[in-house]
Amino acid sequence: MEQVFVKDLKQHLDKEVLLKGWIYNLRSSGKIMFWQFRDGTSVMQVVVSQDEVDEKIWEEAQKVTIESSVVIKGKVTKHPKKEEYEVQLSGLTIVQISEEYPIGKKEHGPDFLLTNRHLWLRSPRQWAIQRVRNVVINAMYEYLNNKGFIKIDAPILTPNACEGTTTLFEVDYFDQGKAYLSQSGQLYIEAAIFSVGRCFDFGPTFRAEKSKTRRHLTEFWMMDAEAAFVEHEESMKIQEGNIRHIIRKVLAECDLELDILKRDKEALKRTDNEFKIMTYHDTIEFLRSKGSDIKVGEDLGADDETILTAESDVPVFVEKWPKEIKAFYMKQDPENPAVYKCSDLVATEGYGEVIGGSQREDDYDLLLERMKKEKLPIADYQWYLDLRRYGSVPHSGYGIGLERTVGWMCGIRHIRETIPFPRMISRIYP
Amino acid sequence: MEQVFVKDLKQHLDKEVLLKGWIYNLRSSGKIMFWQFRDGTSVMQVVVSQDEVDEKIWEEAQKVTIESSVVIKGKVTKHPKKEEYEVQLSGLTIVQISEEYPIGKKEHGPDFLLTNRHLWLRSPRQWAIQRVRNVVINAMYEYLNNKGFIKIDAPILTPNACEGTTTLFEVDYFDQGKAYLSQSGQLYIEAAIFSVGRCFDFGPTFRAEKSKTRRHLTEFWMMDAEAAFVEHEESMKIQEGNIRHIIRKVLAECDLELDILKRDKEALKRTDNEFKIMTYHDTIEFLRSKGSDIKVGEDLGADDETILTAESDVPVFVEKWPKEIKAFYMKQDPENPAVYKCSDLVATEGYGEVIGGSQREDDYDLLLERMKKEKLPIADYQWYLDLRRYGSVPHSGYGIGLERTVGWMCGIRHIRETIPFPRMISRIYP
Repeated sequence: MEQVFVKDLKQHLDKEVLLKGWIYNLRSSGKIMFWQFRDGTSVMQVVVSQDEVDEKIWEEAQKVTIESSVVIKGKVTKHPKKEEYEVQLSGLTIVQISEEYPIGKKEHGPDFLLTNRHLWLRSPRQWAIQRVRNVVINAMYEYLNNKGFIKIDAPILTPNACEGTTTLFEVDYFDQGKAYLSQSGQLYIEAAIFSVGRCFDFGPTFRAEKSKTRRHLTEFWMMDAEAAFVEHEESMKIQEGNIRHIIRKVLAECDLELDILKRDKEALKRTDNEFKIMTYHDTIEFLRSKGSDIKVGEDLGADDETILTAESDVPVFVEKWPKEIKAFYMKQDPENPAVYKCSDLVATEGYGEVIGGSQREDDYDLLLERMKKEKLPIADYQWYLDLRRYGSVPHSGYGIGLERTVGWMCGIRHIRETIPFPRMISRIYP
Repeated sequence: MEQVFVKDLKQHLDKEVLLKGWIYNLRSSGKIMFWQFRDGTSVMQVVVSQDEVDEKIWEEAQKVTIESSVVIKGKVTKHPKKEEYEVQLSGLTIVQISEEYPIGKKEHGPDFLLTNRHLWLRSPRQWAIQRVRNVVINAMYEYLNNKGFIKIDAPILTPNACEGTTTLFEVDYFDQGKAYLSQSGQLYIEAAIFSVGRCFDFGPTFRAEKSKTRRHLTEFWMMDAEAAFVEHEESMKIQEGNIRHIIRKVLAECDLELDILKRDKEALKRTDNEFKIMTYHDTIEFLRSKGSDIKVGEDLGADDETILTAESDVPVFVEKWPKEIKAFYMKQDPENPAVYKCSDLVATEGYGEVIGGSQREDDYDLLLERMKKEKLPIADYQWYLDLRRYGSVPHSGYGIGLERTVGWMCGIRHIRETIPFPRMISRIYP
């Protein structure tokens, strides 16, 4: 008999099936037991009736504890009132009786849960988050493939830093001196567009930042996309389409997961309209009118991002930032050389910045001048400057933070739950 | 007028189109010029006739150098004899005139090419390899999604080593002491199957090995898959399906790329039959009969792998290896406790091992005993042992090396060309 998965139970109504999984929860009332059974694909109820099973099976069933692994047989029935399917147990093989499970129904502190992350992942909320994460990842690939982007894996071990050197993890690299863990693959995929036209990377990035906020991890996943012959305005359209595709996919494929997470689905649905675009300067003015004490030349704080989208159903692009607070590789606006042709996308409901994007400086002289002003080691970046010497083209790109996007989709403020094994400044285990 | 891509030229026969890209090559004969034009999606010929274009355009066209970036307009025509499409130029905008391009038609040494990897990527062979790599990546996701595996990203920064500690890159991790760059995500995704049933990771892994062979990189990409309630034999079926899916996708989607690479497609097609399975002991006997001096207890060398598949159209599983030469987490064979329920998959045509897989030890006591025998730091692995205490299940998994698989598909022996920016012991730039 072949294994059936809980998610497919509906297709087997009134039939005998074989399932393999774990007992998530159990209760008993005299001659009947109810098990919450999970197999990774979903959860269902199993009913064990003393009157319906052999005495031996009834005895075995008494031994089952929370998190025990079992193989069961039984008939699929439908809940008389609800759209729920359950199994009336007829056969049982215990695979292993679990020891007393350390994660119970009582509240545990975050430190205990993080130390037991390998077990905590089994909890319904954590299960749901990882499933949503998977859908976000697939939606990313699907959207980019459809738009003609191919995957180009940027290196993790790099000889220099993309944005400053203060927050880098260092590695001894044979007799080549120090190497650093990449904070962004952007510069590398910029090189690759001259071969493949449009490409993206999607991998881990690292920041040795001593920040202890709920928005910081030392290791997190980023998708960076880059396209030749695409300018700032078109890039924002691509970015908007990318986020929209993710939201639609999550809504279409994660109904159960969003229910478990108690996510306000309507709020996600309302994002499905044209995104707003505001200049940086208009944004500062707006924030100050709402009581923020932010000044021109400052980056948006978490509070500012919350104020900005408090009355907006859709994400907001903040574009054309002053050069001083953005990275050297961005293209200066020909209409206003004090600002870059760049944008940050701020998510709804206070979930903060999820995309940073810009057109890149394609003029060799302007780029070199900018790098000198920022005192970058020019020799290390010679290869990057080369891209402006041999067939330079207007091009743009953007980066999406996976964990922040998953947090937004799931309605989770603490980014540490959005990655399977979070790494923070005081956490490297398990 | 909207940009058209070269790959879609056929759909625009006899129509005026706009294209954006680079001049890969050019030749001229009096009143006519022929450009090889590439835009990342493919390559085509552009014909510039002095009689057909304005004088100004003809003058501009004289300025164009190899690797210059241009926007062109023209009518799509079909080659009279071949299934090839070209464009008769009618409009031209030069984006940038390239400086003299350093990579010419003459032979360059590998060091020169690797130092100029950011430019070398534009060469047809390198373009083709990266396109095949992208198809292999997508085929991996597609196969695993269809088989119910979801993505679980294993951490890169880890407190301990999966297989030995001699070849690890070290990082100072705040006040937590040393962290190490992961050599495999397997142990972590083993934890995750207890939540999601089936999962995989797919990311960079690191080996600080001082090997200078054509098969070694210090940074390379691995896909690790893991499934609950799957035993050794079923796992081999899944592995076979995975490789088959990749080969079929590459054959279906990379015809032009394989032509550029001069790959023997027939050899790839012939793999589409049931893979062979041999025990380790039979393999050693076979190799010795063919003249190898390998002894029982030794790992297969590159030459052995070549001999093994020399007369085989299909890849060969070598299964049930002696414990001494395989990793501690593998399940001992109940029928022969001296060997593990594991297998390596050896590719055809001497491309070597592309998969390592095994059933995992699910018995707490046997695993602990094995770990003690190998003198592993038990405390660091407590979380891993926990998986055998709380609902242990039979489970199996496997890892596919991306670069080796891409090398096999492309017919490339030197693995350094299969990754966009290779990292070797003497190479960290660009």
